[in-house]
Amino acid sequence: MKIGFFQFQPRHGDPAANLDLITNVLSDSQFDLVVLPELASTGYLFDDPRELEALSEPSSGSGSFLSSLIEIAMRHRACIVSGFSERAPEGVFNSAAALDGNGVLCVYRKVHLFNTEKELFQPGNNGFPVFYFNQVCIGMMICFDWVFPESARSLALKGAQIICHPANLVLPLCQNAMVVRSLENAVFSITANRVGSETGQGLSLRFTGKSQIISPKGEVLTRAAEDGQSLTFVDIDPQNALDKRFSPGNDLFSDRQPGQYTL
Amino acid sequence: MKIGFFQFQPRHGDPAANLDLITNVLSDSQFDLVVLPELASTGYLFDDPRELEALSEPSSGSGSFLSSLIEIAMRHRACIVSGFSERAPEGVFNSAAALDGNGVLCVYRKVHLFNTEKELFQPGNNGFPVFYFNQVCIGMMICFDWVFPESARSLALKGAQIICHPANLVLPLCQNAMVVRSLENAVFSITANRVGSETGQGLSLRFTGKSQIISPKGEVLTRAAEDGQSLTFVDIDPQNALDKRFSPGNDLFSDRQPGQYTL
Repeated sequence: MKIGFFQFQPRHGDPAANLDLITNVLSDSQFDLVVLPELASTGYLFDDPRELEALSEPSSGSGSFLSSLIEIAMRHRACIVSGFSERAPEGVFNSAAALDGNGVLCVYRKVHLFNTEKELFQPGNNGFPVFYFNQVCIGMMICFDWVFPESARSLALKGAQIICHPANLVLPLCQNAMVVRSLENAVFSITANRVGSETGQGLSLRFTGKSQIISPKGEVLTRAAEDGQSLTFVDIDPQNALDKRFSPGNDLFSDRQPGQYTL
Repeated sequence: MKIGFFQFQPRHGDPAANLDLITNVLSDSQFDLVVLPELASTGYLFDDPRELEALSEPSSGSGSFLSSLIEIAMRHRACIVSGFSERAPEGVFNSAAALDGNGVLCVYRKVHLFNTEKELFQPGNNGFPVFYFNQVCIGMMICFDWVFPESARSLALKGAQIICHPANLVLPLCQNAMVVRSLENAVFSITANRVGSETGQGLSLRFTGKSQIISPKGEVLTRAAEDGQSLTFVDIDPQNALDKRFSPGNDLFSDRQPGQYTL
């Protein structure tokens, strides 16, 4: 299974331009699963929530950004996971959609909003869902979810073999933590971070790149640079994430002792 | 508050010799809290469980190893946390005791037994308790507990500001993971690992040292060498572990969303 990420700098407020870039960059590649950054369609900081809402799309896939990604997924017979701004009756969510040629496979609404995201988005209210693509169980979490071990744990306990992790990271802490998330759950993880900088909402942010793919043993299979665009794929066997043995006498899941925890 | 660890090679099957070493090494130091390795009294591998049982002590502190540590704690007006083999009516446990001049403050029985430890010990059945020393809330976990995020999480949610982590580590993965455990819970952690090697139970093990102290921000305050004895202390302010803010808009504990987790 060929899995990867596309690290780039989304053009702020211009989903059509971002879609063009994504389409062009992916056009020559063969792959099974590619992950794009958080809010890959819109950019990150918005002084006016109405501007963000106008750029948002329903989770049905009927909007221009997601429907175009579905077409790309169809051409590549692949799964695309992308962050996008979701417009729903309950409000606007910082979401990720998993798409294949048939349409929307799964939508995840970010549970743990970071800092000023709370000014723009409702917190996710659908937990941490998983979906299947080519019989592989896949889950999604977004950016700041990394700091809460419950995020990846919830996905892994539901059977996720691969965790797709669209991100707009501004701190240098997550990449190391995701190594531990993969190791403690024996799952692959794909962190697709963005690069570049933005100002707004009283902040000036530089995004930290270093998108990466981690194995169930906590090995860094690939890691991009801190700057610059990067389309990167690695070949993996997703079955490796079904083996939860840690030593001849230990299994990371059956050795859990929920009766002893206070969570 | 002066906290630290004593990394050394316990002499196998000889609690009296280990006690002599501990007593001598600590004698010239002033400190508030020191952590000794897992099974610091007995060593690690035992082909005959009866040999281990004969070296084990009750958790009351009436045995020779713990009662001597209580005397040391009294002289230093300090808290000592040490791994030891606990003899109880239900069986033998891989335990850690926290001791001060008044006696036993708390006993933790290792919940997640590693590999061949399952041949020797009963799994811990008292959860992850915390205790107070000089009004600082302290918790204990042992060695392999590190790989289960629920261990440190349980302690932190109970209020632990410092996690004492006696260990007999043989893999090179834990030290990096404990950085994440401290960071995700905003707590200090003290990993007291042993050094040297042992054979038995069909295994030949080399212990990996690198005992360390990590801050609530995930900073490595000190880390010992892979080999050799090391008594190391750092000065910390335990109040720093009460501040769970991660960004101006985020608190690591109040931002948890238990209703969205599947654990």
